Amino acid sequence: MISVRGYAAQDPKSPLAPFQFERREPGERDVQLEILYCGVCHSDLHQARNEWGGSLFPMVPGHEIVGRVARTGSAVKKFKVGDLAGVGCLVDSCRTCGSCKEGLEQYCETGSIQTYNAKEKDGKTLTQGGYSETIVVDEDFVVSIPANLDLASVAPLLCAGITTYSPLRHWKVGPGQRVGVVGLGGLGHMGVKLARAMGAHVVVFSHTSRKKQDALRLGAHEVVVSSNPEEMAAHTGKLDFILDTVSANHDVNAYLKLLRRDGNLVLVGAPEKPLEVGAFSLLTGRRNFSGSGIGGLQETQEMLDFCAQHGIVSDIELIPIQQINEAYERLQKGDVKYRFVIDLKSLR
Amino acid sequence: MISVRGYAAQDPKSPLAPFQFERREPGERDVQLEILYCGVCHSDLHQARNEWGGSLFPMVPGHEIVGRVARTGSAVKKFKVGDLAGVGCLVDSCRTCGSCKEGLEQYCETGSIQTYNAKEKDGKTLTQGGYSETIVVDEDFVVSIPANLDLASVAPLLCAGITTYSPLRHWKVGPGQRVGVVGLGGLGHMGVKLARAMGAHVVVFSHTSRKKQDALRLGAHEVVVSSNPEEMAAHTGKLDFILDTVSANHDVNAYLKLLRRDGNLVLVGAPEKPLEVGAFSLLTGRRNFSGSGIGGLQETQEMLDFCAQHGIVSDIELIPIQQINEAYERLQKGDVKYRFVIDLKSLR
Repeated sequence: MISVRGYAAQDPKSPLAPFQFERREPGERDVQLEILYCGVCHSDLHQARNEWGGSLFPMVPGHEIVGRVARTGSAVKKFKVGDLAGVGCLVDSCRTCGSCKEGLEQYCETGSIQTYNAKEKDGKTLTQGGYSETIVVDEDFVVSIPANLDLASVAPLLCAGITTYSPLRHWKVGPGQRVGVVGLGGLGHMGVKLARAMGAHVVVFSHTSRKKQDALRLGAHEVVVSSNPEEMAAHTGKLDFILDTVSANHDVNAYLKLLRRDGNLVLVGAPEKPLEVGAFSLLTGRRNFSGSGIGGLQETQEMLDFCAQHGIVSDIELIPIQQINEAYERLQKGDVKYRFVIDLKSLR
Repeated sequence: MISVRGYAAQDPKSPLAPFQFERREPGERDVQLEILYCGVCHSDLHQARNEWGGSLFPMVPGHEIVGRVARTGSAVKKFKVGDLAGVGCLVDSCRTCGSCKEGLEQYCETGSIQTYNAKEKDGKTLTQGGYSETIVVDEDFVVSIPANLDLASVAPLLCAGITTYSPLRHWKVGPGQRVGVVGLGGLGHMGVKLARAMGAHVVVFSHTSRKKQDALRLGAHEVVVSSNPEEMAAHTGKLDFILDTVSANHDVNAYLKLLRRDGNLVLVGAPEKPLEVGAFSLLTGRRNFSGSGIGGLQETQEMLDFCAQHGIVSDIELIPIQQINEAYERLQKGDVKYRFVIDLKSLR
């Protein structure tokens, strides 16, 4: 076994703290990564604090992992020592169901295995995430990182990037379309950059005008202050697609109204409490309220290549791991532009 | 003007009562129908009692109208005196917007004109529905009734039929698919017959086992008692499409779970209160919660022709108009198999 240093939550109430644990030696199809950077996703916070229920402790969070290949198993084909590589939200899946065969491992019908807060296929070993020195993952769940992008800023693409890219692609967002992005946080700011690069007209909805200049800088064509009924009404029935990245409770009916006939409002945030949907919000205009979760491995690689081609990365604040608890407090308040990324040098 | 006898609600609290009102003389593009039968839709009750708000009184409800052409305007091409014809939920629309041009008048972007509880294009004359002797409608909003079906039982096709047919067609329900129908009332029983005729495997969800034999008789392959968690769990992830016809509050999350990846649960009922939707009900499996409202004129004709070809009509209880208030009381309790239809002979 490999002895690994990391930061873990021991229970839902305690702050994250240094933690020593073990990972398996690389098997023949495994890649061992020296972790360089790991993004801090809002779901790390939700799970460390058991806000979605069922959390497994001790928990080393982190599923936006960028690193360098340190060792490879004898049968590994895609990677060699020294390559830049990444690991996102999944480290395994059944590989045999319809979804897995279509490359949609995130919708594995028997349940994919998450990078942390999950059990490995043995049914007992806890998976542990990227707030740590090194990780060992089957090469099928490792992606290649393009060399032309800033590595620390690439890390959030592994979750925030793919979570927004996947629905934009699935619902065929592109030129000639008006696309709304609700919320301008870690997910939202990636949604703006990606939708813009795909050729759409991008309208950002933000609760106050505070982020207006920033939204325009990120690529939005228009910014709507969602608390202003007149600004909202001007977009009624005008949007082809809305990406809703808000993970707090909010009124989706106000946004459903803005969709054209047959439009989709796609939820990628995960509010704790159910959202209230009025029947007429859907009936009038045959509208759809949909959800989308991360993306498959093939699509994650496609997203990274798309980002390399368009020079897209996340806007980040780089922190040493010793500041993770302070970062969680700020994240809780939405006080980050737009993603914290841990520099794992701080752990060594 | 034509003097017309009907039954109207004068306000949200009073029972429906005899009412004399006027309709326009047929213009050159108008058809005047002698009304033979009119179905009693749950939305008649909602609107007569102002449960959706904004009701206009006095109100003659009824939008499931079957009759015989009594007079035609000079420019009418599709109908001649003596033809069987029908009028559904709409009597006009803007005819120029994108939706109207695609034959989706129900989604008219400036607002289609409903058969009752609406204002005509003059902005003041109230439209009045089929609980009356005769109606005058532009021929573009009149459909032909096939001669081989029982006329009284055809009436509910004009709303219950098209409301269920349209989403089944739009989401391409057909052979090889497992389709759920939630609720076995006026809409639900049509959904079962139509989905079965389209070649799908039909699973009916009903709150109790009381309607089981009836559901099978109507064409269901399986009946699930929705209050039984084990029966429900057996269908998790197995349905391609769900038609939700329930107009009372209910837990849609329990049904969203039953959808396969990328499946749609389509609401055609209109509960008064918003429905609660958990984020994970949509995120896991990229599921869609959608709505669909009635259908366009072209599709309504297509539905009637489909029903003629497959011998499909509604199961009805025929009543004289003098029993309409008793019928509303029974409808409120779900005590009807499966649609009341008024025999307008009773008014003459």
